[in-house]
Amino acid sequence: MPTVRRNITRLADYGRQHKLGIRPHTKTHKSVLMARLQMEAGAVGLTVAKVGEAEVMSEASGDLLLAYPALDSARTARIAKLAQRATLRVGLDSAAAADAIGDAVRSAGATIGILVDLDVGFHRTGVQSPAEALRLAQHVSRTRGLRLDGLMCFRGDLKHPFEQQKPALLEINALLDEAADLFRRGGLECGIVSGGSSPSAYFSHHVDALTEIRPGTYIYNDMNQVRGGFNTIDDCAARVECTVVSNAVPGKFVIDAGSKALTMDRSAHNPELNGFGHVVEYPEARIVRLSEEHGEVDVSQSDRRPKLGERVHVIPNHICPCINLHDNVWIREEDESLRQIPVDARGMLT
Amino acid sequence: MPTVRRNITRLADYGRQHKLGIRPHTKTHKSVLMARLQMEAGAVGLTVAKVGEAEVMSEASGDLLLAYPALDSARTARIAKLAQRATLRVGLDSAAAADAIGDAVRSAGATIGILVDLDVGFHRTGVQSPAEALRLAQHVSRTRGLRLDGLMCFRGDLKHPFEQQKPALLEINALLDEAADLFRRGGLECGIVSGGSSPSAYFSHHVDALTEIRPGTYIYNDMNQVRGGFNTIDDCAARVECTVVSNAVPGKFVIDAGSKALTMDRSAHNPELNGFGHVVEYPEARIVRLSEEHGEVDVSQSDRRPKLGERVHVIPNHICPCINLHDNVWIREEDESLRQIPVDARGMLT
Repeated sequence: MPTVRRNITRLADYGRQHKLGIRPHTKTHKSVLMARLQMEAGAVGLTVAKVGEAEVMSEASGDLLLAYPALDSARTARIAKLAQRATLRVGLDSAAAADAIGDAVRSAGATIGILVDLDVGFHRTGVQSPAEALRLAQHVSRTRGLRLDGLMCFRGDLKHPFEQQKPALLEINALLDEAADLFRRGGLECGIVSGGSSPSAYFSHHVDALTEIRPGTYIYNDMNQVRGGFNTIDDCAARVECTVVSNAVPGKFVIDAGSKALTMDRSAHNPELNGFGHVVEYPEARIVRLSEEHGEVDVSQSDRRPKLGERVHVIPNHICPCINLHDNVWIREEDESLRQIPVDARGMLT
Repeated sequence: MPTVRRNITRLADYGRQHKLGIRPHTKTHKSVLMARLQMEAGAVGLTVAKVGEAEVMSEASGDLLLAYPALDSARTARIAKLAQRATLRVGLDSAAAADAIGDAVRSAGATIGILVDLDVGFHRTGVQSPAEALRLAQHVSRTRGLRLDGLMCFRGDLKHPFEQQKPALLEINALLDEAADLFRRGGLECGIVSGGSSPSAYFSHHVDALTEIRPGTYIYNDMNQVRGGFNTIDDCAARVECTVVSNAVPGKFVIDAGSKALTMDRSAHNPELNGFGHVVEYPEARIVRLSEEHGEVDVSQSDRRPKLGERVHVIPNHICPCINLHDNVWIREEDESLRQIPVDARGMLT
């Protein structure tokens, strides 16, 4: 927990310094307790991807952004219900989604804020230009039950050092500025411009247009954050405790953590070289192959070998889907006391 | 369910035809109901990887193989307790594991059967030669509380057509024969020789030494089984139902299933080409990138596009870790009725 608290405080301080709201993405921890710590540190609200996560996280904050284009009737009904008791915003990129949410919230007698999702180069979701963003914003502003609140964007490929990210950051800023300007000249609201990710978190002040950022991973960190140069091993708060269960095959040992404990997420940097995580006690070892319940660790380049039954700790490549595999996590306090907490929103897919 | 029943029956018939016991690996479905269907079809017992799975699956069968070298005291105590009420066998590859299990079962006044795990070419776990297998078997036979029952092996890389697998199958047979012969000449029991996997399931009769096989995937099948030429799409019983949530980016659509619904498991065949699963309704489409909650589907080579909100069905590359992400699955009967059943052993990591 000291590492978790340090990670939360550091980003909160950065936000205050640059007058940027922090709206942590709870997809990483999926824990009400962790979300409360983030809120207590001054977060402006929380981000979620799925409606089920929003329902769970409403226990920790009354200000939620569903950064996901939920548009089927099962989900819009639940969103509308939640909007009766919380400030809820949804990011979307289609008139169809706006219409579906509008229909649901009007039936529920509620209001939902909308952020228009603008593609700023990741090409996953988002309208394709500031002009399109304006058209969708106009549609939203004409839809009863919806309140246009601004813009959102996500650029998931910013995983490299600042100098390499800089051109993309400037490009993002130009697009957001242009869209916000179009909104304002059209007499439309653009009070919120939401962006950010963990690898780019501390570069966010270079994107002037942003009013808030939505990093998730930063609370725990992982090997992708470390290998990208954004954090050190000491910033990684979450580890998977493993037992060495076999050393029968020369040059390797086997841990009881495979893809069902660590995920098959490859390293964002040099995947062929970096394997499936980092063994803290044996940093020279490489997790070269995962089966579902076995992790094979190559120690052929090292004389140090763990004993059978020894406990080792693995920092995964990508902590968010890893946490989602586990029903509970253990918290270690500064006094070394341990307690288990649930991963409240684990497996919430809708 | 008609597909599940057909898959179960087909393998059961094959086993009867070749006098091979079927001991399905329950890691795939993690469901007591599915395990009962396998037992009703004549399975000799069930296979599990983790002690938690064994505890759950003891509801479906009193004959369990823990094909995993569990050796820490927390697990051996649970194994010993379970052995008081079920026929339990453990596969292991070290004297340390044998000693740990022996200690635990003696305290519990129980007996556990042991299969010596022999590496037949996958180089994950397993003693390295028939001579080493004999030495470990002798150690087991001298350990009170343990009963030597035979051999086990796993060759996870047999994912290609029969003619390509054939040399490996002959090699496996030679190693198992040699080890079994050493056991018998040493006056040791070798009544069980356990092997097999889903891709190699129907070639198992070419490995004469085997007395039983442990396929898991065959109950549901997946794109790895299809692309390996072992099954057709019609044999795939499990699909992830997805909603199209965005089509804002030209040439693609986005489904609400990312790595937290499908896993990041790449295709066992041509991973760069095959993407992260097969969209049943749009077979020409390719799932080219997964985020945690988004699946990006490339339809740039096709004129057919789904509408926003449309439901599509994805057959994942690897069904076993996919099922492990979901708390429940829906069963569709022949009369189209639907009911939900729990994934009872989901997330059981120890």
